[in-house]
Amino acid sequence: MKLSTLAETTGVPIATVKYYLRQGLLPAGRLLSRTQADYDDTHVERIRLIRALTGVGELDMATVQRVLAVVDDPGDDRLELLRAAHESLQAPDPEPRKRGDEQDDTTPSRARVWAGARGWHVDDPDPVLDDLDRAWAACSEAGVHLDEAELDARADVMEQMARIDIESVPEEPTAAVRQVVLGTVLLDPVLVALRRLAQRHQAGKLTESSD
Amino acid sequence: MKLSTLAETTGVPIATVKYYLRQGLLPAGRLLSRTQADYDDTHVERIRLIRALTGVGELDMATVQRVLAVVDDPGDDRLELLRAAHESLQAPDPEPRKRGDEQDDTTPSRARVWAGARGWHVDDPDPVLDDLDRAWAACSEAGVHLDEAELDARADVMEQMARIDIESVPEEPTAAVRQVVLGTVLLDPVLVALRRLAQRHQAGKLTESSD
Repeated sequence: MKLSTLAETTGVPIATVKYYLRQGLLPAGRLLSRTQADYDDTHVERIRLIRALTGVGELDMATVQRVLAVVDDPGDDRLELLRAAHESLQAPDPEPRKRGDEQDDTTPSRARVWAGARGWHVDDPDPVLDDLDRAWAACSEAGVHLDEAELDARADVMEQMARIDIESVPEEPTAAVRQVVLGTVLLDPVLVALRRLAQRHQAGKLTESSD
Repeated sequence: MKLSTLAETTGVPIATVKYYLRQGLLPAGRLLSRTQADYDDTHVERIRLIRALTGVGELDMATVQRVLAVVDDPGDDRLELLRAAHESLQAPDPEPRKRGDEQDDTTPSRARVWAGARGWHVDDPDPVLDDLDRAWAACSEAGVHLDEAELDARADVMEQMARIDIESVPEEPTAAVRQVVLGTVLLDPVLVALRRLAQRHQAGKLTESSD
């Protein structure tokens, strides 16, 4: 199909499609002449993917670029795959610390101590753990009660969620990375909405039982 | 304390504190003279609260304003409280539909049918359900597999999380609304980080067991 048809099919402005091409997010079409290229269903699918990531996924262009790099070149190992997926979702650390520097560091963060006690694997440095530290500190600052025992209770529940996440990952590597990367980003808003609805459900049960 | 001390204590620029005062987010200080007011710990706490909501909570000023309105004037009923908290987190619907209009509507959304079959309470209109619809549609568009049965499995897990959420809400109304509103916003990033760590943990267990 022509570029204009590709734009029409996906509902994305022609200028945006050209921008994706320039940024290398979208592979070039098959050249028909010096001025015309042919696009196919893989281009349609790719554009839908980018729109999903920038839309509900709320990712910026730099992150989309990193995520697509993992989708295009996944490794073999499931754990490595997951780590690459998570890393692609993270803004790069402006001052990455080197491994082995931790002796010179101050005491380990609250989240690191907690995760260690729990027996969860942590990297060093670990951007996801840094996120947890920031989010936890924000709760404390705002006076939202969340101690280690409560975090453990929530982590127990999240392990069940993660089991569903992992079990839904297909065997075939490309499909697997797609599900891992996109499932990680796109399921977050699903889970946020589910939590709100579930809260309402549980609060409703409480109100009924206290009537 | 003076305005400058308040700014220093909270680490927020004086201009920002003045902006909060102008917007009514921060109550006025006790007037000492025509040009000087006295601020106390409640002001410090309030500023920390606003910073938490705009920082990790990533809320815009209009949403912060709605959230603080619920914090300042909570109702009595827990379910109502929760609903007010959720609504304050939602951007107002530009064209709110009236109750009773659903006969004229097209078929109910996929999320509404699913939630109904599950026995979850849904409002009409229901902004949280609309969020779920959008997030679910984004998964489908991006080719992330998520059918009704899988959503049910995840909702089962989220009901457990919601039970923890509700149980951690204190009895005293003002403290309760604080925990509900802030817990809803500020725990989302905690749970997102926990899910990533839990995924890694579960994937690690899989890799070990297949070795």
